[in-house]
Amino acid sequence: MNKHLLANMTWQEYQSKIKDSILILPIGSTEQHGPHLPLGVDAMLAENMSLAIAEKINAVVAPTVSYGYKSLPASGGGPMFPGTIDLKGATVVSLVSDLLEEFLHDGWKKILMVSCHYENEAFLAEAADLIMRNRTDEFPKILLTNWWDNLDESIMPQIFDEIEFPGWALEHAAITETSMMMHFAPELVREEFIIDEGMEGPPTYQCFPPSPTLIPQSGCLHTARSSTAEKGRLIVGNSTHNIVSFLEKEFFAKVEITD
Amino acid sequence: MNKHLLANMTWQEYQSKIKDSILILPIGSTEQHGPHLPLGVDAMLAENMSLAIAEKINAVVAPTVSYGYKSLPASGGGPMFPGTIDLKGATVVSLVSDLLEEFLHDGWKKILMVSCHYENEAFLAEAADLIMRNRTDEFPKILLTNWWDNLDESIMPQIFDEIEFPGWALEHAAITETSMMMHFAPELVREEFIIDEGMEGPPTYQCFPPSPTLIPQSGCLHTARSSTAEKGRLIVGNSTHNIVSFLEKEFFAKVEITD
Amino acid sequence: MNKHLLANMTWQEYQSKIKDSILILPIGSTEQHGPHLPLGVDAMLAENMSLAIAEKINAVVAPTVSYGYKSLPASGGGPMFPGTIDLKGATVVSLVSDLLEEFLHDGWKKILMVSCHYENEAFLAEAADLIMRNRTDEFPKILLTNWWDNLDESIMPQIFDEIEFPGWALEHAAITETSMMMHFAPELVREEFIIDEGMEGPPTYQCFPPSPTLIPQSGCLHTARSSTAEKGRLIVGNSTHNIVSFLEKEFFAKVEITD
Amino acid sequence: MNKHLLANMTWQEYQSKIKDSILILPIGSTEQHGPHLPLGVDAMLAENMSLAIAEKINAVVAPTVSYGYKSLPASGGGPMFPGTIDLKGATVVSLVSDLLEEFLHDGWKKILMVSCHYENEAFLAEAADLIMRNRTDEFPKILLTNWWDNLDESIMPQIFDEIEFPGWALEHAAITETSMMMHFAPELVREEFIIDEGMEGPPTYQCFPPSPTLIPQSGCLHTARSSTAEKGRLIVGNSTHNIVSFLEKEFFAKVEITD
Amino acid sequence: MNKHLLANMTWQEYQSKIKDSILILPIGSTEQHGPHLPLGVDAMLAENMSLAIAEKINAVVAPTVSYGYKSLPASGGGPMFPGTIDLKGATVVSLVSDLLEEFLHDGWKKILMVSCHYENEAFLAEAADLIMRNRTDEFPKILLTNWWDNLDESIMPQIFDEIEFPGWALEHAAITETSMMMHFAPELVREEFIIDEGMEGPPTYQCFPPSPTLIPQSGCLHTARSSTAEKGRLIVGNSTHNIVSFLEKEFFAKVEITD
Amino acid sequence: MNKHLLANMTWQEYQSKIKDSILILPIGSTEQHGPHLPLGVDAMLAENMSLAIAEKINAVVAPTVSYGYKSLPASGGGPMFPGTIDLKGATVVSLVSDLLEEFLHDGWKKILMVSCHYENEAFLAEAADLIMRNRTDEFPKILLTNWWDNLDESIMPQIFDEIEFPGWALEHAAITETSMMMHFAPELVREEFIIDEGMEGPPTYQCFPPSPTLIPQSGCLHTARSSTAEKGRLIVGNSTHNIVSFLEKEFFAKVEITD
Repeated sequence: MNKHLLANMTWQEYQSKIKDSILILPIGSTEQHGPHLPLGVDAMLAENMSLAIAEKINAVVAPTVSYGYKSLPASGGGPMFPGTIDLKGATVVSLVSDLLEEFLHDGWKKILMVSCHYENEAFLAEAADLIMRNRTDEFPKILLTNWWDNLDESIMPQIFDEIEFPGWALEHAAITETSMMMHFAPELVREEFIIDEGMEGPPTYQCFPPSPTLIPQSGCLHTARSSTAEKGRLIVGNSTHNIVSFLEKEFFAKVEITD
Repeated sequence: MNKHLLANMTWQEYQSKIKDSILILPIGSTEQHGPHLPLGVDAMLAENMSLAIAEKINAVVAPTVSYGYKSLPASGGGPMFPGTIDLKGATVVSLVSDLLEEFLHDGWKKILMVSCHYENEAFLAEAADLIMRNRTDEFPKILLTNWWDNLDESIMPQIFDEIEFPGWALEHAAITETSMMMHFAPELVREEFIIDEGMEGPPTYQCFPPSPTLIPQSGCLHTARSSTAEKGRLIVGNSTHNIVSFLEKEFFAKVEITD
Repeated sequence: MNKHLLANMTWQEYQSKIKDSILILPIGSTEQHGPHLPLGVDAMLAENMSLAIAEKINAVVAPTVSYGYKSLPASGGGPMFPGTIDLKGATVVSLVSDLLEEFLHDGWKKILMVSCHYENEAFLAEAADLIMRNRTDEFPKILLTNWWDNLDESIMPQIFDEIEFPGWALEHAAITETSMMMHFAPELVREEFIIDEGMEGPPTYQCFPPSPTLIPQSGCLHTARSSTAEKGRLIVGNSTHNIVSFLEKEFFAKVEITD
Repeated sequence: MNKHLLANMTWQEYQSKIKDSILILPIGSTEQHGPHLPLGVDAMLAENMSLAIAEKINAVVAPTVSYGYKSLPASGGGPMFPGTIDLKGATVVSLVSDLLEEFLHDGWKKILMVSCHYENEAFLAEAADLIMRNRTDEFPKILLTNWWDNLDESIMPQIFDEIEFPGWALEHAAITETSMMMHFAPELVREEFIIDEGMEGPPTYQCFPPSPTLIPQSGCLHTARSSTAEKGRLIVGNSTHNIVSFLEKEFFAKVEITD
Repeated sequence: MNKHLLANMTWQEYQSKIKDSILILPIGSTEQHGPHLPLGVDAMLAENMSLAIAEKINAVVAPTVSYGYKSLPASGGGPMFPGTIDLKGATVVSLVSDLLEEFLHDGWKKILMVSCHYENEAFLAEAADLIMRNRTDEFPKILLTNWWDNLDESIMPQIFDEIEFPGWALEHAAITETSMMMHFAPELVREEFIIDEGMEGPPTYQCFPPSPTLIPQSGCLHTARSSTAEKGRLIVGNSTHNIVSFLEKEFFAKVEITD
Repeated sequence: MNKHLLANMTWQEYQSKIKDSILILPIGSTEQHGPHLPLGVDAMLAENMSLAIAEKINAVVAPTVSYGYKSLPASGGGPMFPGTIDLKGATVVSLVSDLLEEFLHDGWKKILMVSCHYENEAFLAEAADLIMRNRTDEFPKILLTNWWDNLDESIMPQIFDEIEFPGWALEHAAITETSMMMHFAPELVREEFIIDEGMEGPPTYQCFPPSPTLIPQSGCLHTARSSTAEKGRLIVGNSTHNIVSFLEKEFFAKVEITD
């Protein structure tokens, strides 16, 4: 029984955390991740990253939002893959702004959204802005982040030791996500199905309806070859460290580092 | 690794199930359940009930919708309890109709929604109606159910052996939910905090804003005393059996009972 | 010229009532009620019940909302019957929240919504909650009720003297509604078309699209045989009495009983 | 029991009319009409005009929409008068488009909307356009009209025999509406409170928030002096005649004139 | 470089105007205007009228809203003409209420909307009302106007010297608009394509879908013959003068007339 | 009179282009661009880029959407700057999907959206997806692009000859936009106010409400020093060339290059 999960707490236990703790809302998606990774990758990464952060700062992790904004072809394969279950933009905004409103209503002053699906970001920012736009006090304060923007440049050569970094857009079901899944849930990685397929580079424009030939049939935008659990551990450790660092700065002395 | 969970499947594994299987969407809530049960009860029951059904008919269980429609005072304690995280009606409708639309788009013909939060029902029906209203073919077909409407009258005396059945509205965090949690996740039940408190009967009207004195301070609408894991097993077994029975009827020969 | 109807008052007469009176908003539907009752039953019952209450406490009755939320098969016959004119959930919520907002803006502190269509209830509660959720004062206060939840258990044997009570879901165009119409508007009851048809019991799940064979072709969910104007008078008298009782309690000394 | 009112029909009686009849939807408002007319004027005129038309062509009159779009200061007095119960634009559009959709779904091919509240018109046209925009067949066909655009120029001198016609914007609670109410419901006209007050002319711009000094305190935009039931009869007769004439043209031989 | 255009200012130049100046928002449409006028007429007139006003009172002119509410057949030709690019009512309301909200947020106290497309008006009033309805202070104040309601009766004979005034509804792509375009942008008027075509008079009802035979094939509702740049100058001068007059009254001493 | 502008065409001229031409929709914003550039930069660049493309392929340029999605602090300075006039996400989606729907309705098969405001992109993609998602034919086809994704890597050293490229997020009111404005509209560039200020690097998270100290007071995210009209000409030429190249590919032989 994970003690950081809001879902496991009684309402009285939860209430006792509000004043001094941080609320983390993990947000993922349900989206194809090639023949070797499961559909729940983004939601699983969001929940596990949130728990990794929560363990360091004794935070509360809300139930993961398991469905996210529409997969785009050039960063997730797009809507044509079965198992990619897309929410409309307005739905993501309503869902997340309702949740933020409720957490604020419960009295939370420090909220962190951890999204592990690139396409979510504009809509999560819209949700947060709709709730916070007319507030001028420093707190409550809502932060939105992900793991890829929080990797140090210095660790990139260790991750992309065999394969050249193709840019974040194409790192879908590729080395970073595969390695993180090997670290968090190795039993869900079908290593035998990792293939050496991918796109040349992201297109310089978007097309509607999406081109049926743009994306490799496997759904992989870049190869996952050379992924290891050790690389996953490195990514998680580094990004968690950097996220905790800015939480310290933004949420100040109120954040106690427990490890 | 549960093999019925959509989130654990690759897109190709998922795709292979669509033609002959059933898609189950569990829908819960995040809501106070007294001092002895965690906030995630409704979501956990929805997911576990869905898995129990899936095991019998080899179905696919989509990621659980962990947040639901607003808790009402006389059936869930209402919005004043911390940890009760409510979605607006329009949000529930958008969220669930987006999901149904996507599952239909993937080719599913037989979908079952399992809700374990009473207040969700009108909004889930609205979502399904918006998607299906203008269709006249028998399939695709979407069913919506819960566990409490699927209990045989004959087992009620076994469940309410010490305490008289107070009606379903007040069975919130009471004997049935507590027993089911003892069955599914005993480590999450704080038996030492079960108290003998509750309401006399549901009011004959609703009040806005909700009365601060209507609901017992614990959030329990009726006592959970006399709950047992065995009763939970009985409830789950009986309602699962009855749900599988109507699935056979509605989805006909296509449903193969595997146990 | 009924003196309780808002529509009959000049704005100055209306204005003079706001401080000390109660505003009642009747909400019905336009829905099939079998071969013996007219489509306007729910709206007519809502208006007549509201006037019966208004006569006892000198209240103001706003124009009846004549269209309501979608008829569901197992409680109203569903969308397949001609003359069942359904509003979407979002429309009911917008309509009623606009009205409540306007009445509050005019200065009303005590508002009662009387709905005579079961399917309306979740959406009326949503409308009231959207308007009142962030208010913490005791007043303004909005109450929502119906007649069936306000019948004493003790009068049920008098109403169901020949026919056994089938549960409220199936009491559609059946003994209670038919009797109330015989009491309020006997000229609109086609007694010669009362038939002895109905469903066995409500299903334990909902189906989308609705099954074409679930509902009897007449639209009657249960027989109306044994209906009488006298039973209607009893139902109206008893429920009106109970409604006035809780109005006294909730709206306190401010409610003067005039009969 | 008026035989043209949909609300009075059983669903089978209603169904029998669909193929050959016309469906009329009356749309009014709840709005101040000075010290001498009741708040329900627009809804009452809409219903009575619809019935007058229905009697001539044996049409079906749906339940009146009793609430309408916001009163504007220079044509209805504006929002500051108690008893003026305004719907938002989006609400009017949703409400009326839901209704039109349902009537079309029931099979109606010829629908007439009769609005007696000037401010409704843009939003009724929007609702009809949303439903009909992508249809190219001649039928179903929806018409939208009112009484004032259907008066012959030749009868104006009879109506404005003592008082000069001030333009339609200012004819609010003035001679035409007062005369029509004297004709339809004389018991609701407080003749003793008719006053000789009004505005000079409509302003050439709109102001938000509305100016508190623009509108006479009585709410009358022009005098109702010289109103008579006879003038009301003339207005109703003339506009009904002209409306029936264009119904004949638009709905062709299918309209049978019965008087 | 026009110094009144917001788009040409830096944010610091713009900021320096807010306290003492007036913000003018021009709103047009993209709509057919017959064979002799371009699709941008309404937007061009809105921008040029706004600049003419701004020059007199040293105001700031925001970027023109170039798309407007749906063209109606009897006042603009309707949706069947290519190049008539219609926004839905809800879109116009959202767009303009967002803009007004932002201008108020920047601190503007005096805002004028100048619309040159008749069909916009109800939706612009709705947008302004949604933003201002609950404000009771005199300022901020938003005014909404057009040029045609601001013409003196006395100049009409000069404009309609050869052709009789057909009423404003039919003055679409006719003498007034053509003359104003000859004044503001003569190079865009194809004088050789002015034709002597038009409708008899506006219908007394609206029809959905619009009748394909109601509107002349050219899109002209009335002849533009006898249009001159001189008449355009007269219209612009007269309406600008009257608009500036009421701005003086409504915005009082704060408006400095600079010419 | 620019012959590519839709606004300058009559409806008949416009109609004659639909079959063989391309429709370009320029989308900008109204947003602070430091002390040296005007608020209309993004709209002006969108319109000028669209015209540059149109001249090469004889396309039609629709009226520019002058207001866009909310400015984000780390890519545009954010909402705190006066003159940054933000639309909500839902408004941008409604506006652009209405426009696309209308252009498709007019018969366009090839549409290009040119956005020059980074924050617009997710919402423009959502609008296009809502309109196109259920279409499977190759045409109509809608493309969405910008200038910065269409610059060859090889020209970057020429643009960033003195100043190192800071990444596209910080290139707001910096060298590229300033150079393009010097090329298109030199009279609007206040060269004397170019300052050497900027941010260190974009933050790795977003903060709501935005931090008041994150953005330099001038609104410049990076220095514009070393901007020249020549660099602007280079950027416009190179990106226009690349955009025309993919138009050729996507719209195939139908695109005739005219220069």
